[in-house]
Amino acid sequence: MPVAIGSRDPARAEEAAGRARSAAGTGDFSAHDNAQAAREADTVILSVPFRNHSETLANLKEALSPGKLLIDATVPLAAAVSGKATRMLGVWQGSAAEQALEMVTQGVRVVSALHTVSAASLTDLEHPLGQDVLLCGDARADKADAAALIERIDGLRCVDCGRLEMARIAESLTALLISVNARYKIHSGIHLTSLPERLWT
Amino acid sequence: MPVAIGSRDPARAEEAAGRARSAAGTGDFSAHDNAQAAREADTVILSVPFRNHSETLANLKEALSPGKLLIDATVPLAAAVSGKATRMLGVWQGSAAEQALEMVTQGVRVVSALHTVSAASLTDLEHPLGQDVLLCGDARADKADAAALIERIDGLRCVDCGRLEMARIAESLTALLISVNARYKIHSGIHLTSLPERLWT
Repeated sequence: MPVAIGSRDPARAEEAAGRARSAAGTGDFSAHDNAQAAREADTVILSVPFRNHSETLANLKEALSPGKLLIDATVPLAAAVSGKATRMLGVWQGSAAEQALEMVTQGVRVVSALHTVSAASLTDLEHPLGQDVLLCGDARADKADAAALIERIDGLRCVDCGRLEMARIAESLTALLISVNARYKIHSGIHLTSLPERLWT
Repeated sequence: MPVAIGSRDPARAEEAAGRARSAAGTGDFSAHDNAQAAREADTVILSVPFRNHSETLANLKEALSPGKLLIDATVPLAAAVSGKATRMLGVWQGSAAEQALEMVTQGVRVVSALHTVSAASLTDLEHPLGQDVLLCGDARADKADAAALIERIDGLRCVDCGRLEMARIAESLTALLISVNARYKIHSGIHLTSLPERLWT
């Protein structure tokens, strides 16, 4: 599956694509500016500091056309306004994901996911992840599509946590994990107990 | 270790003590009204519907004397005002636990814990829990005392999640678990990955 990496700065996208190529050994990674990347893809993963969330979505308004799946991993940490990374900002819509839903063209399918999986553990290919990804979204089919993509990553299990309004809780878990990580010097993730190994058919 | 069970209605406390006696087979369980129970104990676990949280603490003002450890497991679910159990109320102080801290006599040590462990899994003695308990509190020593008590329950590991202000996130996880539980018909709990088995010495 081809991966189009976007950045406001195409040189940084090229760097990231290079890192992905050498880490993966195989695969099709291309570099673009954000709008180009979003135009290329049917599924767009948005993972930006909250400081840039609203501006990025405004700039992607045209590129994100109806029918595309937007997986939003953004977390409104207070760090966005020079506060602590263990504190959350209050977002009027409830969450970054609900802000995204308000900003995109009608028909763009928004799922909130991937907040609690640290970059450090994702890029550490030596250790199995063994983590859950909390999915929130208003349509079960959109969550199933997101799960099918995300579960291609070994060791990630997607859990349907309900409607997009639940994203405020899933997002805030990131701040809690940052607190735990700082205390224990680890990169922790979430696992929900008592669930079957496979949740999507 | 003797356990004093309190209720607004002493008959219900007696019922609960009876259930505990027959489930545990052994142990010292006594029944009281809330103030009596709080007066008896050095460590008080407060687990009430949020609707009764503030009133209960007001009534316990005298009984909860300085030096006692208050473990607050209360969650401000919107169900308290006839809303959904998957939604949270905004508490001005930030969380039920911070409301508790504001209400108790100075010197009462407040730790927030046990929100995510369901009554159903706690009373199911056949299946190991294998869950984490998220602890929030302003003093490490208070959290260590809470952990020493809670970890007497097989299969529970206490994780220090930071200051009491983090309780708003730990409490809200309950609403997320309620959503997951309703969807998958289970009683799920939380496990944080990448942490050592034993966190308290």
